[in-house]
Formats: sequence, structure tokens, C-alpha cells
Amino acid sequence: MAGTGTASNTSTVDFFRELRDRLGQNAVDDSRSAVETYGRTAMPSAPRPSGVVRPQSRDEVIDCLKLANEHRKPLYPISGGKNWGLGSACPTTDGQVVMDLSGMTRILEVNEQLGYAVIEPGVTQGQLFQYLQDNQIDLWMDATGAGPDATIVGNLMERGYGHSPNGDRFHNSCAFEVVLADGSVIETGWAHHPNSQVSNLFKTGIGPSIDGLFTQSNLGVVTRATIWLIPKPQAFKAYVFRIKSDEELAAVVDALRPLRSLGVINSVVHLANDYRVISGHHQFPYDRFSGEDPLPEAARAELRKAMGLGHWNALGAFYGTKDSVQGSCRAMRKALRGITKPIFIDDAKLQWFDRAYRIAKWIPAVQRLNDSVTSARSAIALLKGKPVHDHLAGSGWRSRKAWQDQPTDPLDRGDGIIWLTPLVPLTGDACQQFLSCVEPIFAEFGFEPLLTFVMISGRVMCCPTTICYDRSSDVESLRAKECYRRLLSVCTEQGFLPYRCGIQSMSTLLQTNTNGSTISKLKHTLDPLQIIAPGRYQSIH
Amino acid sequence: MAGTGTASNTSTVDFFRELRDRLGQNAVDDSRSAVETYGRTAMPSAPRPSGVVRPQSRDEVIDCLKLANEHRKPLYPISGGKNWGLGSACPTTDGQVVMDLSGMTRILEVNEQLGYAVIEPGVTQGQLFQYLQDNQIDLWMDATGAGPDATIVGNLMERGYGHSPNGDRFHNSCAFEVVLADGSVIETGWAHHPNSQVSNLFKTGIGPSIDGLFTQSNLGVVTRATIWLIPKPQAFKAYVFRIKSDEELAAVVDALRPLRSLGVINSVVHLANDYRVISGHHQFPYDRFSGEDPLPEAARAELRKAMGLGHWNALGAFYGTKDSVQGSCRAMRKALRGITKPIFIDDAKLQWFDRAYRIAKWIPAVQRLNDSVTSARSAIALLKGKPVHDHLAGSGWRSRKAWQDQPTDPLDRGDGIIWLTPLVPLTGDACQQFLSCVEPIFAEFGFEPLLTFVMISGRVMCCPTTICYDRSSDVESLRAKECYRRLLSVCTEQGFLPYRCGIQSMSTLLQTNTNGSTISKLKHTLDPLQIIAPGRYQSIH
Repeated sequence: MAGTGTASNTSTVDFFRELRDRLGQNAVDDSRSAVETYGRTAMPSAPRPSGVVRPQSRDEVIDCLKLANEHRKPLYPISGGKNWGLGSACPTTDGQVVMDLSGMTRILEVNEQLGYAVIEPGVTQGQLFQYLQDNQIDLWMDATGAGPDATIVGNLMERGYGHSPNGDRFHNSCAFEVVLADGSVIETGWAHHPNSQVSNLFKTGIGPSIDGLFTQSNLGVVTRATIWLIPKPQAFKAYVFRIKSDEELAAVVDALRPLRSLGVINSVVHLANDYRVISGHHQFPYDRFSGEDPLPEAARAELRKAMGLGHWNALGAFYGTKDSVQGSCRAMRKALRGITKPIFIDDAKLQWFDRAYRIAKWIPAVQRLNDSVTSARSAIALLKGKPVHDHLAGSGWRSRKAWQDQPTDPLDRGDGIIWLTPLVPLTGDACQQFLSCVEPIFAEFGFEPLLTFVMISGRVMCCPTTICYDRSSDVESLRAKECYRRLLSVCTEQGFLPYRCGIQSMSTLLQTNTNGSTISKLKHTLDPLQIIAPGRYQSIH
Repeated sequence: MAGTGTASNTSTVDFFRELRDRLGQNAVDDSRSAVETYGRTAMPSAPRPSGVVRPQSRDEVIDCLKLANEHRKPLYPISGGKNWGLGSACPTTDGQVVMDLSGMTRILEVNEQLGYAVIEPGVTQGQLFQYLQDNQIDLWMDATGAGPDATIVGNLMERGYGHSPNGDRFHNSCAFEVVLADGSVIETGWAHHPNSQVSNLFKTGIGPSIDGLFTQSNLGVVTRATIWLIPKPQAFKAYVFRIKSDEELAAVVDALRPLRSLGVINSVVHLANDYRVISGHHQFPYDRFSGEDPLPEAARAELRKAMGLGHWNALGAFYGTKDSVQGSCRAMRKALRGITKPIFIDDAKLQWFDRAYRIAKWIPAVQRLNDSVTSARSAIALLKGKPVHDHLAGSGWRSRKAWQDQPTDPLDRGDGIIWLTPLVPLTGDACQQFLSCVEPIFAEFGFEPLLTFVMISGRVMCCPTTICYDRSSDVESLRAKECYRRLLSVCTEQGFLPYRCGIQSMSTLLQTNTNGSTISKLKHTLDPLQIIAPGRYQSIH
């Protein structure tokens, strides 16, 4: 089996039998349907796993790893497998056994005073949100747009970003419990210390900080993590604003940079282009256009107008006290003066607006405002840490299957998406340069660019770049694949490097990485038989 | 040589000769005076280095490491060696050769737009500050109280904390250039990529995040790092306030926690006890008391009154725009209502106050305010990123040598200090529990507790705990050593674990650390001959 670096010394059948003996019949599945389910991705093609094992506890994870070492079989850990557009649950190479941790769903502790939750890898965004609600805990969690069924640890291990002040998920986490390939267990930071009062409060212990080693990694299996939550703020105000053009976008980025660097803007700002927003509410009009070319500009403008969108659309929020939020709103308004005008929205305003709208919807200005408010409403829930399904709709933009209900998993509908995550310096110039790199490529391959600039810090943005395509069409699938290849190659060439990547690019991107050989050495030390996810964020030859 | 894990296979003389051949006569010094200078610490006793080598560039660092491998001699890298109270420049075990990087003083790039500086390990706080001034760059750096001569990278590698919004130095750094023990070079994050636009803007690349490995570590030698700076804020207001008692301190901590968690307080807050502040301006009155017992309460109260201090004294600042700072000030005032009243100070107010004071100093309220302002003035410079010598004075509290000028290096005066850095949960209860642990130990050993609670995040404080003693007195030195041992043991037992530690405790603290064996494995992989700083943040047997 080329590429996995693992010599199988027993048959896969033996391995599955022993896994069944140890974990029970129901914990193991190598049926055709399991292989198909876990091999599903939103990408044009992907490797095929050989089956799945579902440990329910850390000790069962240890059992799996020990057996895998004995049988020299690779195990590919996933939390929930909702890594759509980057490989979902699918292993990096053919024949790996998926180790599905989604059954490990314990919320081990929530500390309201100090703002943290200790969770297992199967805990979903929806589950933690509900737990906080049910127990009337005045903490807000950070949520991503991946919906209630996506796990938190899965995204954390990818070093993903949400929307709140704790949007940098890796930075806002600690105390990883990690099972190493040999079955030994370590706990990062001070979490291993029996008397520690600070395990869940501080990322590092004494000596080298090692938790970063287990993110975007195949060096261990994280079976527990602490994530930090914010206290329910006294005041919360979301802001939305429209941006008319790329030039105006550049001006906005430059105007907001100092506020973001100083923490006046204390959470992640999302700047989504029209297509990204439209895709959440509409599908490509295949009844009017073939899809071989991107949607004509006139149709794009029509949809934009109907939805009351700008060419770019900003979304974010301030979290604090009444005074601090008021101060921040003023600072933002002034910074944007002469460019655009932010609209601030809080719960009171939404309620007031609902009442006013019923009376005054015949006034054009009120109607226009309603369009903005409507498209922002579920986004605001997200900003407050409520995971919602709505944002998954976008993956069906190029699907030919109509949808009635909100999808809970884009794979169920067979949506086609490929994701890139380039990093772009936080300057207007860099934005424009990035757009002039990627937009012509989308056009060339006949796709609409679905783009978001996410101000993850005061220096850099990540730019989730989505290729939506009709996965039922071989022609579109092929074009999507080529489009991805070109986008990645041009972005890499131009220095807009990704912050994470899909399973199809891990080996390639790490081959040119001079850190790669150090990481390979560490892998060889910690996992000499290449048991854990060979090829995951690793260069394989 | 027990403890170093290194078998010397040539004589030290040969090693020094070859170092001289390679780097030049002046780069190497194994004279008695060099050994003494580099072996100086503020602690009661310490190991003895065997000499020093001073590479001037990355390539010379590589040369040193290659020779050290050939000769199997340990090299102990230091940036500037100003790690007072934790070991200064002194190696962890006898006989190591100090590799002094203080000659690598290049500031390779400062980017005003994106707020970063690329520096070598010898760049001092004072040097970078002066560079920003001389080049009229509108960026503020983060400064610690260690003064202008302390290096930035040295503190960063210890994961130290400063005062500004970028006070968490490790979090606000990236793109480490690291020479590994075998002489190979890696660059963390995307810094290795030739076309990268984001090397200096984002901490991680693709795959495992490894820069944490090289902090509090002996796994490599960092020869370049990028540190992040903040734009000069439109508005800046420092705040100071007095806290009357430990109970009031507890209330303050609980009141400020939500503001810190939400980022309304967007920088590090320092809460120093009276002794910590007094020690910066006075010395122990050995003319009145023997020093066998702590200063009597009456004398303490007298000094506190003379300096207009509270039992605890808060210092911090808001950085932002006029509006946001105003909002934050209001939020803080309200949060502290009924407990204490913060005084907000900016440059305009200082100037205004100077004028008013000249006219109205006969008014008691003005006089009292002046005391607060005076003691805050140099602290405010620090908050604005200006490193000042003033804060080093405290190390001489128990010195019997009177000082005229501000010391620039406590070692020159032979000051005795031992530092502990326990972490304390950010709750009033934990503060009180911590105080009830450590204060009786100071009393028992006849020392004054010099304590600061530093709100480094919304969940945890670090508590720099200083034992000041008269290093010229064998009796006091012995008591200080015992006092340290007890403090560390009780703090560890009670779960107030340190965020860094002195060279005398590294091995012990890591022996009880279950991550220790993993780190040892990594060390063995990257540095099989134990060349780099054996025993530094490593358990040795």
C-alpha cells in the first residue's frame, strides 16, 4: 500500500476481528455501507477507508491503538467528520480504518465562574449549547457556521476560527488529554498534576509547550480538551454593513486594522462577498443558465438587489458592558466615516424593529432595512454562540437537487464543495491583490467565487474560499478539481498561504516545508509504525 | 560529570581552542573572570560555567553547535542573561559553556503598517524602543520591568509577560528561526516559505504548531523571532487605584474578572502589594531593625503612609480610540463602585497636574494625589512600552549596600533575590487562599513578602513572588534558600503551580511531570548527545 508507510503484517480481517473481540460487535463496522458512509466527501474524489471502529472512551482508544500496533494497521481518528470541503471523515489514503470518536460525548465539567468546559471529542456545538441552556449557565460558547452537529474538538484540532471573542479556538483551549501511538497518555499544560488549581485556566506548564504538536497533526489522539467560554456579556451589539466595491473593501480593511490590533474590535469580523451570502438563500439558476460559465453579472446584481446586499457584507459584534460597547460602536462608526455606515443591532432593537416593521413596512427605507435585518438575524444567533443549521445551506449553491428543509449535513444531499483557506495580510492592498489572483481563476473555470475575508487578528485575515460545484456532473467535478489546483498553486506562488488544508494537499504542501523533516522525526519517535493517520498533515513519499 | 548526561570525549581545553580557531580569539573566554561573571546569580548558590562563547550570527551559532557535537560539550544559550531571580546567565549544571547571543543585535525589519519587528536574540528592550523613536515609527512595543538592557527574545523564550495589550509575549510572536542541535535550521509557521506574505503575521503554518517546543526549552537555539507591536493608540489612559485590605483585593479581582474575560480590559493588570512598591523606593531599614524578623507592621504602615500606598496597588491602562477608552474607563469605574475608585491618568492630565501642583500643593487632597501620581509616573512610561531602569531598584530591598544611582543590573550590586511565579485562579477566594499559604512562610523565615498579582488573562493570574535577602549574609542566604524551598513545596501542594521556574528547580518540577518523558523523547530525537543546555527545563537523573 504505497503512501501509508505501513507494512501490514496481518490481514485486515484479523484486525477487525480482534477489534470486535475487544470493543464489541457494534463498535466495529467494515460493511460496504460503512466504507461508503465514511468515505463520503464533498470533493470530486477521495480515498476509501477500510472500515470504522467507534471507541466510547479513552481506554477503548488505547485498546484500538495497541491492537493497531500489533497488526500494523493505520487508524484515522475523527471527532465528528464534519470537515466538509477539506475531506470530511475520509482518511488521507486508501485502506485506513476510521476511528470515529463521535460516541465520546461527555461534558465533564463546566465552570461558570472561570468560564471553561471540559469536553470529549464527540461533543457537538449543539450539545454544549443545549447544556448551557438547560443548566442556565451564563456563559456563551464560540460557534462556527458548521451547524449544531459539528464537534468542537474536531474544529479545534484543525485550529479553526469561530465568531466570538474566543474565535481563535486553539488559543482559547488547553489541557489536552492525548493518547500517543504506543497507548500512553499525556495531559498538556499542568493538567497532569494531581493538585493543580490551574489546569483548565492556563495553556502551558513548565517546559516546552507541546499542545500545538497535536493540532493539524497525526502525533496523537486527543481524547479530552478544555475550551474557554466567555461570561454572558452585560451588553452585546452586532454590527452589519454593506460595502459597495472592492475599493471600498480595501478602505474598510485599512480603517478597521488599528481597532482590531488594539482590541477595540475584540472579536472576529467577517466580510463576505455577495455570492457567499446569496448561496445561503438561493441556488444557482440552472433553469436559466447552463452552469458552464459563472452566473452573468446582471443576474448576480439582480440577486444582490433582491437581498439588499452590498458587493461585500460585514458582520461582527461587540461584547462587553453597556459603556464599553457604546464606546466601541462609536469608535467603529468614526473609523468608517466617509466609507460606509455600520448598523448596530441588539435584541431590543430586533424586537422593536419587528413591531415597527408590521406598521411601517410600506416605507421603502424600512423595507430596505428589513432586508438587512433578515439576512443578519441567524448570523446574530451565531455571534452569540448559538450554532444554527442555516449557514450550511450555502454548500448547495451549485447542486441541481432542490431543497425544502435546511440540510443538517451537506453530504446527505451530495453537495459539491472544495475549500481553500488562504491567509491574506490585513491591508486593503493585499485584499485587492488576493482578489485579482483568485477571481479570474474562478471565472476561467466557470464558477462563482464564494469568498469571505475573516479578520482573525490585527495583522492577518483568513479567506475561506469555496468552490461550489455540481457533484452529480462529471464535467463540473473535473472543472472544480482543476480550479482548486490552480487556486492553490497561484495562492502559494503569490504567498497567500493556507492556515489549514484538505486531505488532497497535505502531503504536497508539507513536501516544500522545511519544518517537514523535523515533524517527520517527531512522528517517527512518537509513532514509529505510522499507526495514527499516516499522511495527515505529513509529507509521505 | 553527573547530571549533564554528556560524556566528554575531548578536553575542555581542546574545545575552547577549536572554538577560538573558528570564531576568533575575542569570541571565546574561559578566564576566571568570565567564569565568574557568567556564573553570577542573585540566588544563594548556583552552578559554575566553564567559559563563554559569543557567536555574532546564526552561522556562528551553527559552527558552535557542530563543534560542541564533535567534542560532546554542552552549550548553554542565553540571550542577555538578565533572568534575575531565576538563574540569570548561569547554566543549569556545572561545566557548561555559556553561548552568549547578546552580540546578535540586528533589528532586521520593522513593519509599521502591520505592526511587527523581526529581531535577533541580543536586541534589548531599550534598543528597540530607541529604534522606534529614532525612526519615528508609530508603534508601541511591550516592555517588562526588567529595564532597557534586558533582551526581548530572552523573555519571550521564557514565555514572560509585559504590561501592554501584547503582554502575553509568546502569543504575540511568531516566525522563530531555530538552529537545532545538529546545526540544521528551521523556521516556524510559514516563515520558511520563500514567497510567503504572512510569515510575520501568523503563528502557524500547515501541520503541527511547533514554536511552543522552543520556549522554556533546550530543544533548539532561537536565532531570530518576530514580535508583534501595537499601533500607537489614538487614546491611552492609565489607571491606578489603592486597595485597603486582602478582602477588598478579593472583591476587586471578582469585579474585574468579567471585564478581563470579555476584553473590556485589554491589557495586563498588575496588583502589587505595598512591599513590592516600597522596595522600589526604599531599602530595608537595617539601621533600625536586625533583619532577622520581617519589618514590624508599624514600620510597614509608616512607609505605606509616607508613599500614599494602599495595602495593594493596582496599575494598568486602556489603549484604543477616545471613545473606546472612555467606554472602558466608565465600565471599570462602575465595576469597582463600592470597592475603590480608579484614578485615570493620561499625558494631558499629567501635564495639567504638574501645573496645578505647583500652585495648589498646600491643599492636602492635591498632595495626596501627587503621591499617587509620582509613584505611577515611571510605571506609566512602562505601560506605553518605554523600558525604564526604575523597576529594578526593588531587588536591593534587603541589600546592605546603599545605592545612589539607579542600578542597571542587580548583579553589579550583589543583590539577593529569588523569584517564584505561581499561577493563581482569577477569583477573590483563590487570592486569599494563596496569600494564606505564602505570607506565613515569609514571616516564618523573617522576610517581607514582595507580591504582585498579574491578571494575564480572564481566568488566571501569575503571582511574581520575590524573596529579597541580603546576599552578603550567609545566614540570610541560607534562610532565603529554605524559604524558597518551602514556598515552592507549599504552592505545588496547594496547586498554585508555576508558569516558569529557576534553574534550581527545573529538574525537580519536571520529574513529577508525566509529559516529561515525552519531552525527553523529543530531546533525544533532536539532540541525542545532549548538547544544548542539558537540564534546562528537563528532568535529569
